Amino acid sequence: MDGATALVRTFLAAGVDTVFANPGTSEMHLVAALDDHPDMRCVLALFEGGATGAADGHARMTGGVGATLLHLGPGFGNGWANLHNAKKAGVGLVAVVGDHARRHLAYDAPLKADLEGVARSVSDWLRVTAPGSVGADGAAAIRAALPGRIATLVLPADAAWSDGDAPAGTMAPPPEAPVDAGRVALAAGLLVRPGAALMLDGRMLYGEAAETAGRIAARTGCRLLAPHFCARIRRGAGAVAIETLAYRHAGAREVLEDVAELVLLGARHPVNFFAYPDLPSTPLPPATRVTELCPWNGPAEAWLAALAEAVGVTGAEEAPRMPARLPEAPGGPLTAEAVGAAVARALPEEAIFANEAISLAAPILAAMEGAAAHDRLDLTGGAIGDGLPVAVGAAVACPDRRVVAVVGDGSAMYTIQSLWTMARERLDVTVVILANRGYRILRAEMEAMGKPEPGRNARAMMDVAEPELDFVALAKGHGVDAVRVATGEALEAALAEALAVPGPRLIEAVL
Amino acid sequence: MDGATALVRTFLAAGVDTVFANPGTSEMHLVAALDDHPDMRCVLALFEGGATGAADGHARMTGGVGATLLHLGPGFGNGWANLHNAKKAGVGLVAVVGDHARRHLAYDAPLKADLEGVARSVSDWLRVTAPGSVGADGAAAIRAALPGRIATLVLPADAAWSDGDAPAGTMAPPPEAPVDAGRVALAAGLLVRPGAALMLDGRMLYGEAAETAGRIAARTGCRLLAPHFCARIRRGAGAVAIETLAYRHAGAREVLEDVAELVLLGARHPVNFFAYPDLPSTPLPPATRVTELCPWNGPAEAWLAALAEAVGVTGAEEAPRMPARLPEAPGGPLTAEAVGAAVARALPEEAIFANEAISLAAPILAAMEGAAAHDRLDLTGGAIGDGLPVAVGAAVACPDRRVVAVVGDGSAMYTIQSLWTMARERLDVTVVILANRGYRILRAEMEAMGKPEPGRNARAMMDVAEPELDFVALAKGHGVDAVRVATGEALEAALAEALAVPGPRLIEAVL
Repeated sequence: MDGATALVRTFLAAGVDTVFANPGTSEMHLVAALDDHPDMRCVLALFEGGATGAADGHARMTGGVGATLLHLGPGFGNGWANLHNAKKAGVGLVAVVGDHARRHLAYDAPLKADLEGVARSVSDWLRVTAPGSVGADGAAAIRAALPGRIATLVLPADAAWSDGDAPAGTMAPPPEAPVDAGRVALAAGLLVRPGAALMLDGRMLYGEAAETAGRIAARTGCRLLAPHFCARIRRGAGAVAIETLAYRHAGAREVLEDVAELVLLGARHPVNFFAYPDLPSTPLPPATRVTELCPWNGPAEAWLAALAEAVGVTGAEEAPRMPARLPEAPGGPLTAEAVGAAVARALPEEAIFANEAISLAAPILAAMEGAAAHDRLDLTGGAIGDGLPVAVGAAVACPDRRVVAVVGDGSAMYTIQSLWTMARERLDVTVVILANRGYRILRAEMEAMGKPEPGRNARAMMDVAEPELDFVALAKGHGVDAVRVATGEALEAALAEALAVPGPRLIEAVL
Repeated sequence: MDGATALVRTFLAAGVDTVFANPGTSEMHLVAALDDHPDMRCVLALFEGGATGAADGHARMTGGVGATLLHLGPGFGNGWANLHNAKKAGVGLVAVVGDHARRHLAYDAPLKADLEGVARSVSDWLRVTAPGSVGADGAAAIRAALPGRIATLVLPADAAWSDGDAPAGTMAPPPEAPVDAGRVALAAGLLVRPGAALMLDGRMLYGEAAETAGRIAARTGCRLLAPHFCARIRRGAGAVAIETLAYRHAGAREVLEDVAELVLLGARHPVNFFAYPDLPSTPLPPATRVTELCPWNGPAEAWLAALAEAVGVTGAEEAPRMPARLPEAPGGPLTAEAVGAAVARALPEEAIFANEAISLAAPILAAMEGAAAHDRLDLTGGAIGDGLPVAVGAAVACPDRRVVAVVGDGSAMYTIQSLWTMARERLDVTVVILANRGYRILRAEMEAMGKPEPGRNARAMMDVAEPELDFVALAKGHGVDAVRVATGEALEAALAEALAVPGPRLIEAVL
């Protein structure tokens, strides 16, 4: 058995049965092995950022390990930004990247590059496999990825094509360190104090973990907090009420203002998105005391369970929940508020909301809070261009759920090729493009710097007009039906139609 | 003066007056400084691969240093693949990449990444600047890039916004090592032997250097060779006759078969593009003796001049030249030969030909050999997606010349956003998309592996059909007029029209 076959069988044995790929010549033996195993689903992206972002979205929804197949250093480079977003999401992801046969690396062939260097710069785990150990190294990569890490396996072509390999079973990951009962008791004591808040992230923000957190809040009276950008968070009517921080310092500071005791459970220390000359780097009030119960991306489930027990959760608690509250039907020219209202009103039960609304997010997210219950997937690493790919991966993972992606025009252009994958795979994704013709967030930043009237060069780098992008044509070019709307009424009608038919649709919302 | 202003003034003083950019919030002080200096031309790309590839194309045509402005680790990652192509082209390029203010790096902000790691993996030179030394470090970056290297300057936001900086003059690069007269005499002796060939690359393939090489060939009787992929090579009627290696082993081996003495002057050792289980890594016949006169990307001009003197070039020699020979007018359904014939016949004098024809290149390049004299820019690093960006950069560099880009459909999709920059900047670029609906080069590879009938998974990763891409719609979406053609006659008509009007046009050639 060649190494490529051993790798495919190892992945299948571990339940990794979907791979988002853009292979090349150096991966042809792997392509051949995948071809021999039709139980592996191979989803092609026309650009590697689409593949890595889709693997991220897939893993966010399955809770398992996402997989992507890339071509040499440049393919990895093209996938880097969305691997960064996946890393910041705390998602488990295996990137298999082909390299030249080892003997070929003695020469300066065009595609020879510092593949290990570029891979190491975003991977938590990296291994270059070799003939005979591809199956075993593939299993090690999956084990490394399982706790929510980026694991990169470099597959030299000769390791793929050489005989003498074997698939390997993936053992369970090593047992997690047990929770510290003393620290749990300390946190339990803090959470009943006035001004106490429990900050969560990662897998604590949806499903049974979020329910447990809600019971802890009911039992202790503490607030529940989450970052502004979440890999996956349950929102909408009936979701456990978790407050999220705002994007900007002032807003985040407002949320935290009255927090005297902040207990971090699998969450990072709050930090502002960017630094500014006259602002601190963190929105935390100086008087807030921070206690870290479990580090970010650590074994938060175990700590949460122990905390629930320590505060005396019985299961009978009424967790605080978000109320159903649909906005009024939007009318007239589109605004961000109107987009939020229309999407909130149209959202089906159990939808997945891929959020890359960027500068327009605040009013849209506010409107969505009272919509039907849904899972929201945010841009976790700030590398724009994840909204469309994440929507692809989520839709592949959850074929029985509707995906709605709300994406800024500047962001959408980063990985616009994902539209084609939506069409190819006939995914039930409704894409709403926020067409405000520019990087509006940069306009706002420049205004804040005291330059309300940018000149020619600044406008050249912030405005995406002259010419205007035509997203209806772009969608058509990728095989996706699309419509342009400029009023609240038209957006409501377009959403109703898009959500009533199978397959992808794009709505260009002109603001 | 703040650091951002010092950097802009340093660049302008060094003659670096064009920057291909996609900045973000961390670069806003640099954007403000650029805004205050309208003599700097800022060209926006809607994706960083478009910016780095355009800087590459610009530098290939100016012979100077290309410049690009990127946003943090993810922006650098997005630009990585075309920086790789530029590196393999031996092009001088400065990448300025913004980073968080240094105090902000103590926190795990969403966009914090291993920027130095990803930058180092493709840069020949890397420096993180600091408040007060931005001007001086910018000058050092330009000096580092001048000999044809990738120089990356990391600009922390606080270095950009802090006062107390000053622009710096860029000194000439350090003097090159003198040529070794003994080695030159040795090479001069080799080149008059039967079966001698002089292999060139980089700046030796066009302009006065190519003329000198032609005179050496006339004087000694040696053949002139070049790699298959050239950063810039003069082609067409009247160009010095330089044979290029073929893409595949067998073809390259055929070119080299009778070469007994191979003298490398600024060229790499010949190497096959990929390794295969049953083929050697190099197409060089075992009996060929290789003598390296000057390493790749070394000071080849000096060695070439010394060699010309050593072989007795007087200037009166008649260099071997490529004859004018236009193909017959193509008729009927399109083939690669027909595309080559149509483009060759339509090509205006002094055009720039951006070649990313990939699997269809051989017949197209053959047809182009007898076209009007032109400069050809190839995909030097094998990272697909450089054809459109390189065309952008070349057109910005040479506003009085026509640019024709012939690009495979799979490649075009990697950086399709470049069409928008062509429209925004009203560049005289004619794009011909080779629409064969897939990664045909992978089909050929799989066939060579003995799998002529790929199954579902292999087809899913090699065919770009179901749905077909509509490049006319994609072009329209980016603001570029376009037409679809399927016959030789229609392609000739479309080319004639496109080349008669100002601004960009796209022709989807359905094969």
